[in-house]
Formats: sequence, C-alpha cells, structure tokens
Amino acid sequence: MFKNASPDEVKAVLAKAEEAYRVLKGYSIRQRTSFMRTVATEIEALGDVLIKTAMAESNLTEARLLGERTRTVWQWNSYANYTELGNWLDARIDFPTAMPSPKPDVRKTSVALGPVVVFGAGNFPFAFSTAGGDTACAIAAGCPVIVKAHPGHPETCALMAQAIEKARIKCRMPEGIFAQVFDEGYEIGQMLIKHPAVKAIAFTGSFKGGTAIAELAAERDEPIPVFAEMGSINPIFLMPDKLKQNAAEIAGQFINSVTLGVGQFCTNPGVIIVVAGRDLDTFQSTLKQVAANTPAAPMLHPGIAKNFEKTKANALEQSGVEVLAKTGAEQAENHGALVLATVSGVEFISNPALHEEVFGPYSLLVVCRDAEEMLRVAQSLKGQLTSTLFATGKDLEESEKLCTIVQERCGRIIFNQFPTGVEVCLAMHHGGPFPATTNSAFTSVGADGIKRFTRPLSFQNWPDEFLPDELKNDNPLEIWRTVNNELTMESVNPVQAN
Amino acid sequence: MFKNASPDEVKAVLAKAEEAYRVLKGYSIRQRTSFMRTVATEIEALGDVLIKTAMAESNLTEARLLGERTRTVWQWNSYANYTELGNWLDARIDFPTAMPSPKPDVRKTSVALGPVVVFGAGNFPFAFSTAGGDTACAIAAGCPVIVKAHPGHPETCALMAQAIEKARIKCRMPEGIFAQVFDEGYEIGQMLIKHPAVKAIAFTGSFKGGTAIAELAAERDEPIPVFAEMGSINPIFLMPDKLKQNAAEIAGQFINSVTLGVGQFCTNPGVIIVVAGRDLDTFQSTLKQVAANTPAAPMLHPGIAKNFEKTKANALEQSGVEVLAKTGAEQAENHGALVLATVSGVEFISNPALHEEVFGPYSLLVVCRDAEEMLRVAQSLKGQLTSTLFATGKDLEESEKLCTIVQERCGRIIFNQFPTGVEVCLAMHHGGPFPATTNSAFTSVGADGIKRFTRPLSFQNWPDEFLPDELKNDNPLEIWRTVNNELTMESVNPVQAN
Repeated sequence: MFKNASPDEVKAVLAKAEEAYRVLKGYSIRQRTSFMRTVATEIEALGDVLIKTAMAESNLTEARLLGERTRTVWQWNSYANYTELGNWLDARIDFPTAMPSPKPDVRKTSVALGPVVVFGAGNFPFAFSTAGGDTACAIAAGCPVIVKAHPGHPETCALMAQAIEKARIKCRMPEGIFAQVFDEGYEIGQMLIKHPAVKAIAFTGSFKGGTAIAELAAERDEPIPVFAEMGSINPIFLMPDKLKQNAAEIAGQFINSVTLGVGQFCTNPGVIIVVAGRDLDTFQSTLKQVAANTPAAPMLHPGIAKNFEKTKANALEQSGVEVLAKTGAEQAENHGALVLATVSGVEFISNPALHEEVFGPYSLLVVCRDAEEMLRVAQSLKGQLTSTLFATGKDLEESEKLCTIVQERCGRIIFNQFPTGVEVCLAMHHGGPFPATTNSAFTSVGADGIKRFTRPLSFQNWPDEFLPDELKNDNPLEIWRTVNNELTMESVNPVQAN
Repeated sequence: MFKNASPDEVKAVLAKAEEAYRVLKGYSIRQRTSFMRTVATEIEALGDVLIKTAMAESNLTEARLLGERTRTVWQWNSYANYTELGNWLDARIDFPTAMPSPKPDVRKTSVALGPVVVFGAGNFPFAFSTAGGDTACAIAAGCPVIVKAHPGHPETCALMAQAIEKARIKCRMPEGIFAQVFDEGYEIGQMLIKHPAVKAIAFTGSFKGGTAIAELAAERDEPIPVFAEMGSINPIFLMPDKLKQNAAEIAGQFINSVTLGVGQFCTNPGVIIVVAGRDLDTFQSTLKQVAANTPAAPMLHPGIAKNFEKTKANALEQSGVEVLAKTGAEQAENHGALVLATVSGVEFISNPALHEEVFGPYSLLVVCRDAEEMLRVAQSLKGQLTSTLFATGKDLEESEKLCTIVQERCGRIIFNQFPTGVEVCLAMHHGGPFPATTNSAFTSVGADGIKRFTRPLSFQNWPDEFLPDELKNDNPLEIWRTVNNELTMESVNPVQAN
C-alpha cells in the first residue's frame, strides 16, 4: 500500500528539512512548544481509528495501546513544559564584575544540531515510532525530523504523520519540520544516514541494526552522532533473604514482567540470578505453576515470532541449559509461548551466547553456588539498560560490592520493582553502557533526551540585542541561568567598559 | 632520558587505575576537590624549575609560561569550586506527590565513566598537557587518569607528574588515580586506546591524530567516547563598515593575534575575509608595514617548524594564492616567520586545500567580490572552534544571514575581539562541529568539560540511606537539584506508600 520512497523524493525531503532548520531559528521556543502541544491534541483527535489500526498491525491489545497513546500524548505535553522551563539550554553567563578587566563577556547556550533522522521501533507503534519520544525531543530542540516509517505498522505511521501535519498547518510551522518516508528495504535508510544534510540519528531496535547505523555514520566525511538504544537482558538479582521471605510472590510478579507485552520490551528481564539453597524450591515450583497457566499471545508480527523461536531454540541448546517451566497452552501460529530456562552460574559466566537478548517471553534463571559466584556473574555482564535488586534491608547491607559492580554496568538500577514500565519523567535514564546503547551519555526517555539534538555555542562580547533571548541581559524567557557560577533567574547588569 | 614504557608496565598501570576507580567511589566529592586544590598548590611549589624546564623544552617565552602556569593553577582551583557546587551532577528527583500512585520514585545523578587516557598537546605544556584541563576534569568526575606524556616536553611532564604525586600522598588518594607513561612511538598509545579498562579518551592535537584515535576507539569490542580537539582555521569576517572605520587598528591587532605564541594556537586566525573596495587598501598596506617589522620567533620544536614550512609552502602553491605581506627579518633555524597570503573568494570556495590549518604564523586574506560572495565563503567553511565578526552596529544589522551560517559552523562566535586567548570560565565553549572536534556536544575548556567523563545513572525506588549523597532526601551536599521538575536546594520529603 505504501510506495517506497525514491532517492529523488528523499533528496527533496532533505532539502526541505534543511530549509526548515534555518526557518525554525526565527521561531521562538514558545512557538515550538505550542506546536508540540497541538501534535498531542491531534494524536488524541485521531480517536478510535488509531487504536484499531495499531491493533490490526501490531497484535497489541486495546488496553496496552490505549495506555501507550496516553503515554505518547504525555511525552509531547511534558516535553513541551520542560522545553519552556529552559533548563536544558544550560544557559551560562560570565562577565567581568569590575572594570577595567582582561576578562571578556562570554555567554553560552545550546543550539539545534540540524535535521534528525528517526528510526522507530516495532514494539511501540506510538511512543517510540513516528510521533514518539525521539521525534518530540528533536522538535523540542529545534531540529526538523525525517522519520523512516517502521515497516511493521505503516498505516499507524501514516496516521501519526497526518496528526503532525495537521498540527503543523494549525501552528504555521515550516513545511520541512517533519517528513516521513517509507521503504521496505535498507536503501532509503542508508541514503538518509549518509546524506550531508542529516546531523544526528535516533534509533530504537536491535543490536545489529544499531551498530550497522553507527558504523555507516562514522564513515561519513562528517561523522554524526548516533543515539541507538539496542536493548539488553536486564538482569535481576534476587537476594537470599528476600528469596526466603517472598519467593512465591516474586515468582508470580516475575512471570508477569517477563510476559508483559508478550515479552517484547527492551526492559524485559531476560535473566534472574539467585544463590542455590532450599529457599529456591518454593521459587522454582511457583514459577512452574504460574508458567503452566500463562497463555501464549500473538507477537507483533510473524517475523518477530519466527525470530523468537530461533533465538529461544539457540539459547536452549547451550551447554547446561535446561527448561525449567513453560506454558501449558497449545501454541498457535505467531504466538509467543513462555519458556523459562535455568543454568548454573559457571556456565553463564563462560558462555557469551547466554548473554544475548531473546526478544519475547523467555527468561533464564541463573543459579549460583554462592554469593561469590553471584559477584562473578555480575562482573561477566555487559552494559545494560536496567539492573534490579530484589532484596531486604539485610541483603542490601551485605551487597555493597555487588551494587558497585551492577551500577557500573547499567543505566538504571531498581530496588524491589520490575524493570518493565519506563516512567516518563526527568529523573529517568533510559540508556546505559554499550551494548545497551551507542552513547551512554544520553537518555531516550524523559525530557533530558532533548539534549541529544543540541550542542553548546558560546557568544563572546556579543551585543545584547543580537543575542538569543535566553542569553539577553534582562532574561526575557525568565529561565534559570548560571551567572558568574551561580544559578539565578535574575537579570544581569554587566559593568560597562569605559 | 625517559624510558619508553613496556607493554607489561602499561598493563600494571591500567590494573592500578581500575582498582583506583573502585576505591574512588568510596571517596566524597569534597575529598576529590581537596586533592585538586593540593595539585594546584604543588604545581606552584615547583617554582622556577618548572618555568625553566618548559622554556628549554618548548622555546616558549618566560612571560607566556608564567601566564600559562597561572591559568593551569586556576583550572584546578576553579574546577574544584564548580565540582563542589554539584550542578554538573544534573541531580534530578521525581517522586509521587500523593499516594497511592503508580509512579515510582526515580532519581538520577552522574557517575564516573572509569579510567581515562589523556593525550596532551605540545603547544600548551602546562594547561593542555600532563596536569592540564583534561586531567583536572577527569579527576573532578571521579575518573583515574593515565597520561601519555607528550614527547616534545618530557621533563616538564615528569615535573608535573611529581607535583600530582605529592598531592596524592598528602591527600591519601589511591595510587592508581594518576599515572604517566612515556613512549616516543605509537605503540603504547595504541595499546592504551584499545585496552578494555580504558573508558574514555581526551586528546588535543592534529586532525590526523584525533581521527586516528577515534577510529581505533570505534573498532573496540566496546567502543568508547573520544573527545578530540583538532584545531581549525578560525575565520574572521571583517565587515565593510568596520573596515572603513578601523582598518589600520584591526590590521595591527590581527597580526598580533596571528603571531601570538608564534601562531601555535588552535584558535589562531588562519583566514580573514573581506569584501573588495577602496577601504581595503589601508588594511593591506598596514598589514605589509606591520608584518615587515614583526620578528620571527623560535617554534616549539624542529618538527613543528619543519611542518610549518611544508604546509605554508603547500598553501602558497595553490592556484590564485599570492603573498601579501611578510616579515622582513632574517629567518633563523626553527624560527617561524610571519607570512600573510591573499586569494579571491572564488578560489577559496573551490579549493579544499585552502581550508586546511597551517599551524604557525600564517594567515590568508580572502577577498570577496561582494557581500553575496562572502556568504558563499561562509557556507563553504567546515566546523570551526571559533568564528569572529569585526563589525559596527550597522554591519551587524545587515549580517543576519551571515551570522546564521557562521553560527552553524562554530563552537564560539566572537564580536570585535580576537579568538586567541580562551577564557577559562563556565560559559566558555571550546569545541565545535567536526572537524574541529570529534564530539560537538562537549567543551575541553571550562568546568563543563567535567561532563565528558560522566554518564547518567538512575536509581528507582532505592532506599534513601543507600543512595549517593547528592540524591538523598535531606540534600546533605546542599546542591541544586531538579525535584519534580523544579530547581531547588530544599530537602525532599516523599509521601510514603501505605
């Protein structure tokens, strides 16, 4: 139904994006945030057809998609609020406090990088796709966006693009501020990555996809930043005292987390680590019971289901891996059926294949001989989006070393809650050391994600009337600024040279 | 005199750095800043021998080195002050304001990346070398540092390492917090870049060196960030009305800037752009007069002088390039003798060779036919550390389009001052789009440079007593934090779940 874009069409789209980038410099922050809020309204105005279309294209449930729509609308609105606060500009002003002085007047703000290409994710057709968080962040920063539509849900992508276009017309934004291109192959995506007009890339998806993009971007005459979120196995450390006290309860919640969204979350807990002992019996037997009664559910599309079967089979073939629990349901076509496996700590540490993500309702119980082996398991882990400790106060007091190791290897560390469900708030870091992402300095959830698409620019001795508003003496935007090293919302009155 | 490090010695150094990284986590920010201030004191305590050694190794003047020492001491002290302020942590706290709530308590801070390798610059033996800004920033962030000593001034490097070691012992810092290795070749540097213990690299030097390091770092199993500052040609746009009013004065100051430090600054103005017209005569004739009386001076070392002659000769051989002015002094061995050349705007735009940095006392006057051609010259420029406008108010009003183009291509834009002399303050951005640096998001001068060596880490539902100090409810560090989207220094009292 959707025609693949031609190279000439892509060139035209990029030329418009470059033009829009310049035009947008003449727009105020307030005009951008008005546009962002109108996008939110237009997404809501799509109504039931958006939900029905996404259900048909993604097999996700109505309840899940209603929730995801609310989250997506919240992203546009809350990022608009934060954009107006202006803290993300990191405005800094230094000037001499007495004259004569050899010190110059120097002021710094953040400026938009330029056109941004967004590759959306298949598992979040609203929140991480066409009108998702990456698009909202780039527009907040002042960057035009070109979305490479996700081939898994093209109709949903088209509806979202319509909502953005309606908002654009209402808010009189330049035409090139947003565009979407369709292509079922790789050619158009590669052309976008390589084109000199493109200044940054945001991606959510697989390790293979993310690293391929990063390599292409690094090979350009002008290398550009790639913010790729590539998933992880999100280890859970279930500590001895906690296991003793809450084995059955945690087992049930754990299966709930593993099967949430049919396991198709980048924060899906792909491994849970325990120390051997008699308390483990209750945990394992509850897992078996609950798993047996957990129904299979349709996955996003046949390709994902096929890949789940393949990666799961590969994991189960590894030395020392045994199936621990699984659903008792008949397995229908393209459905993801829960499997929990188990392996020893020693095998896990020595086999890199067990550290690979299995995208779907699968998790691995790693049984360590003792606390020392659990530490070595932690040390063997690669970079993760999240790591979780289920622990009592007693456990935590005895886990200082473990906590240190775990923190070095993740972007978010969680206590007695599950990693699935990424709260959209400023304190959220959705990122982490490689291979969870290609750039551990930035988040892809929360308004701090705006910073991915900016860079600092200093103005030295620049006349006040020609400065950007956020740096002007009288602080017309009423934002927090760091003036001669102190945070303040006050205006400034530099002493004048004679 | 200095033995090249062996691979085994480097391995031992890195093992100690990894250990120190963990040990440092148990140290407070206040302990780190105390160490930083003690380093400053110990650098001063080196006294005259430091200046004399650097003079002998670098050919830089006593006055220049006294100034650079003051600057280096200021870097350690002012970065320590800013480290204590804690704003760089970007501490954020979000918690539910009413219970029951589905929202989790999420808090975010910045954590140290791990051991950092610093490659210093030859042209700043104090401020951008062993005990330079990169080392100070990394230690401020909590990262141990391994310096690959600059082969151009090894004795100076050794003295600085002694000062740091004295401070380390006084402040009881772990042994691995700082190390320096010597090697005249590339082997040890490459080993450092490739080693898994190393988590980030800071470099100041040539485009060739910086991009080679970035490529090696990207090829690692775990790619790491490279913050390379690679210099630029720092264009100056001399606008018509300003030229009319101040031609002679600017000509004199311009030569002063071009020859400052024998032209061996990364902010050296390598090109000055004007529009043809009768006012140009005064400018050119003053350049000739002043240049004729400008003495040659010894360059950093014979290799630099040789390279200057080579790149200068190459620039002068380009089509349409003519010598405009030069020193009348006899040229002594290893001395840099001023040459100013001139070329038309059309030639400059079409010849990439003229966009290359000539490291030394050389600059190119680009004469444009009209304002339109000056715009095209601006558009032809690559990423720059700085760009400068010499302009009157009238010029500036007519330069909106030029300013937009120029801002897109630089990290600092300057009005009626010269780019040489980089003020060490928070509002300074010393960086810029590629090829000025490999990462336009960060500065290498000013305390914001600390952020290069950190990444965000979120804590979800984490018990208060186990949180890092900067995230604890009662704000024991008394720092600014963003709590539920508002900046505040207040403590927080989250509502408790039932």
